[in-house]
Amino acid sequence: MILAANANAQGSHVGEWRHPTAWDKPASNLENAIRLARIAEAGRFDLLFLADGNGVRNLDKPDLFAATSPSDRPGVFEPVTLLSALAMVTEHVGLVATTTTTYDEPFSVARRFASLDHISKGRAGWNLVTTSNPGDALNFSHEEHVPRDDRYERAGEFAQIVKGLWDSWADDAFPQDKASGRFLDPSKVHALNFRGKHFQVAGPLNAPRPPQGHPVIFSAGQSETGKELSAATADCVFAIEGTIERAQTLYADLKGRLPKYGRSADSLKILSGVTIIAAETEEEAEQLARELDDLVPPAVGLDYLSKMVGVKMSAYPLDGPFPALDFEHVGPTGIGKAIVAKALEQKLTVRETYRAILPQMAGNFFKGSAAQVADLMERWFLEKACDGFMIAAPVVPTGLERFIKLVVPELQRRGLFRTEYSGRTLRDNLGLARPENRFFAQAGRAAE
Amino acid sequence: MILAANANAQGSHVGEWRHPTAWDKPASNLENAIRLARIAEAGRFDLLFLADGNGVRNLDKPDLFAATSPSDRPGVFEPVTLLSALAMVTEHVGLVATTTTTYDEPFSVARRFASLDHISKGRAGWNLVTTSNPGDALNFSHEEHVPRDDRYERAGEFAQIVKGLWDSWADDAFPQDKASGRFLDPSKVHALNFRGKHFQVAGPLNAPRPPQGHPVIFSAGQSETGKELSAATADCVFAIEGTIERAQTLYADLKGRLPKYGRSADSLKILSGVTIIAAETEEEAEQLARELDDLVPPAVGLDYLSKMVGVKMSAYPLDGPFPALDFEHVGPTGIGKAIVAKALEQKLTVRETYRAILPQMAGNFFKGSAAQVADLMERWFLEKACDGFMIAAPVVPTGLERFIKLVVPELQRRGLFRTEYSGRTLRDNLGLARPENRFFAQAGRAAE
Ligand SMILES: Cc1cc2nc3c(=O)[nH]c(=O)nc-3n(C[C@H](O)[C@H](O)[C@H](O)COP(=O)(O)O)c2cc1C
Ligand SMILES: Cc1cc2nc3c(=O)[nH]c(=O)nc-3n(C[C@H](O)[C@H](O)[C@H](O)COP(=O)(O)O)c2cc1C
Repeated sequence: MILAANANAQGSHVGEWRHPTAWDKPASNLENAIRLARIAEAGRFDLLFLADGNGVRNLDKPDLFAATSPSDRPGVFEPVTLLSALAMVTEHVGLVATTTTTYDEPFSVARRFASLDHISKGRAGWNLVTTSNPGDALNFSHEEHVPRDDRYERAGEFAQIVKGLWDSWADDAFPQDKASGRFLDPSKVHALNFRGKHFQVAGPLNAPRPPQGHPVIFSAGQSETGKELSAATADCVFAIEGTIERAQTLYADLKGRLPKYGRSADSLKILSGVTIIAAETEEEAEQLARELDDLVPPAVGLDYLSKMVGVKMSAYPLDGPFPALDFEHVGPTGIGKAIVAKALEQKLTVRETYRAILPQMAGNFFKGSAAQVADLMERWFLEKACDGFMIAAPVVPTGLERFIKLVVPELQRRGLFRTEYSGRTLRDNLGLARPENRFFAQAGRAAE
Repeated sequence: MILAANANAQGSHVGEWRHPTAWDKPASNLENAIRLARIAEAGRFDLLFLADGNGVRNLDKPDLFAATSPSDRPGVFEPVTLLSALAMVTEHVGLVATTTTTYDEPFSVARRFASLDHISKGRAGWNLVTTSNPGDALNFSHEEHVPRDDRYERAGEFAQIVKGLWDSWADDAFPQDKASGRFLDPSKVHALNFRGKHFQVAGPLNAPRPPQGHPVIFSAGQSETGKELSAATADCVFAIEGTIERAQTLYADLKGRLPKYGRSADSLKILSGVTIIAAETEEEAEQLARELDDLVPPAVGLDYLSKMVGVKMSAYPLDGPFPALDFEHVGPTGIGKAIVAKALEQKLTVRETYRAILPQMAGNFFKGSAAQVADLMERWFLEKACDGFMIAAPVVPTGLERFIKLVVPELQRRGLFRTEYSGRTLRDNLGLARPENRFFAQAGRAAE
């Protein structure tokens, strides 16, 4: 079972930053990030994961700032810069950063992740996104967000170029032999000369081949095009599904797309996003969850709900029934519709509805004693809903510490999770092979 | 006197990487970079400086790879990624990375350097370049390099935006107060809404104001537009002049441009690039210089000379007189013309000419005993040729170690250089004030 730690400084619950056991001053706080990385490594986690965006949303709702998703928060580090620093204080845990293909350049992205892979000795991962926040366009001289199909077409070329650039040099291209004066072997370089619709990139990359061959590629799109891109390109998918049935469907769907790209089911790992509140007992977990919910004043809860469903919810009585909203109005993502459907089905009030979604930014929510949480995780894993989990554990960092103290040993007892790191790279952690160089056979001889 | 260490893995002499006291395997070698950073900090240097480019030149001349300038080498780290890692193993030394304004986005650059400044607790610097290597265009979907005037116009807007984004938040914009639930103070954010010819950037930046207010800005253009950009925008200039007279002229020129931007002469520091070979005695320094020159085979020396003057020099007899080249043919930079002029004036042979330029990639060359080198440095400094030096010390890292062991104590004895760090930031090292926030008075109240 793969375990990934959501490493954004604040976790998944809107109120968590206010909890007494949450750390103080989470905005751009390096000491916190170092502590979280060390906790995750002590827990033998596969990797740290940083979501990211390039803009601040909800400037008109300041109390929501701590509540917004990591990709539109105001006080964050640029993720590759942060992970490079964290590479120096960790040894085994993978370091995965999100970067957009919509407002960046493939040469630059290939370089940064190659650098991170060299610096971390093979622990870098790139979460390829096409940018969820349309407002980010305004920070990159665009009036509006590029349409989704264009973004994905661009992303496809982008990923192809990045992989091609990582293969610019054979693994043994740099003899750096003082005696003969031969710094590099000119037969072991391949200029890409990519000419596509969106990009023309000559290459070669100005970095040796990364230790992992290619840093691990994550992707997270939910649309048809998004899933095809994952099947064609990604090593890991970050999936968000609220029920085991939907997760199983997505799992089968994604794995089923692999053969047409000549890939085995094992070559794509699916990580399910989940918020986990684990405690000594079920009651304690309930208690903590209630404490967190209580830290969110109704005005903030309503703002949050309004944002999620795309409708101004303060227009409705707080303790009245959730209104039968016209589905056309509930925002662009599927999340809004799912919230409305659930509120109506379970006959929730407006207040109950916002409280129900407070902990679920990561899409799914496991809560209970160590055994209860481990049971859920085991079931999702064994019943092919996922290959592992992307865990957000409120409160940061104590929620992750609690998970590691209580649940990880339980998973280890059941033989589901490692007790020691075995390899040295992120690919080793994940059980992914090191890719061959597209242009050179393993021994370094030209492949074509 | 300011001392900066050129921190590119290989230094300034074409042959140095082959020397027995040079480190092995310099391409993308993290351990070497860590060692160099620690050496510079032990020597109380102000900063480490990384030149950079986005492309590999001279693919057809493999033996020149180790000889090319740091901005077109094949085995390098992306500089911000590297410096972020080095921030974790150093405490005082400044960390300056080169990034181009021609093939990057101001929002992204503002973010990366804000991150580096937060991670390093105020030691970040940005060397703004407009890209020297025209071939880099081919890695960014451009058929050719943007013309110089356009590049500089773009660079001017770029720098204005980056500074504006760094001022997005008052220094005290993030109370993060658990008790009141107030994460940020909405009166302390300023969205830039920049609309220029090249860029439109809304802001705010998704990072708190950097510890230094603004990371230190370096720039290095030599043209009229380049110098104006430095006078308007930069905190430091990296200058390359071969004689004290020319350096004095440039120094007076640059400082003279400051009043019209309302700046004092002290607010712009000028660092002169110099290659230094220091040894116990003059003879030892000469001996080391000869050893380095001898490591360059004539074919490589000729290739190097050809590259610098823009003419194929293997067409001329190696030990014949340097030919009276037509000045129209000698390449785009001023360096080529200067080399030809010197060769003709001093009646050098072709071989003597290439040997004369081998150590001088950094523009100027001081060689000798500790006292001799310190004399030269003192003279340049006191006679207003520079405020300090950007030092390339072949062989890496032993050349820098030798400089620190021999020359630094001599400079300290003369009262020219610090014996201990006094402040905590790069601005403190350089004696530069922390800039006020353009949009908020120091106390955090709106300035306008
Ligand atoms: C689980 C998940 C995580 C995502 N993380 C990010 C992120 O960190 N930053 C971002 O800009 N976009 C993120 N996205 C957005 C996707 O990259 C993509 O732009 C968006 O989902 C629209 O494509 P789709 O319709 O294929 O899902 C994420 C999407 C999903 C489903
Ligand atoms: C001392 C010095 C150092 C420079 N360093 C770099 C560098 O590291 N990377 C780069 O792409 N360009 C570098 N440049 C190029 C400049 O940014 C600029 O593009 C070039 O000098 C042309 O402008 P100019 O005519 O004003 O000098 C450097 C220039 C000088 C003079």
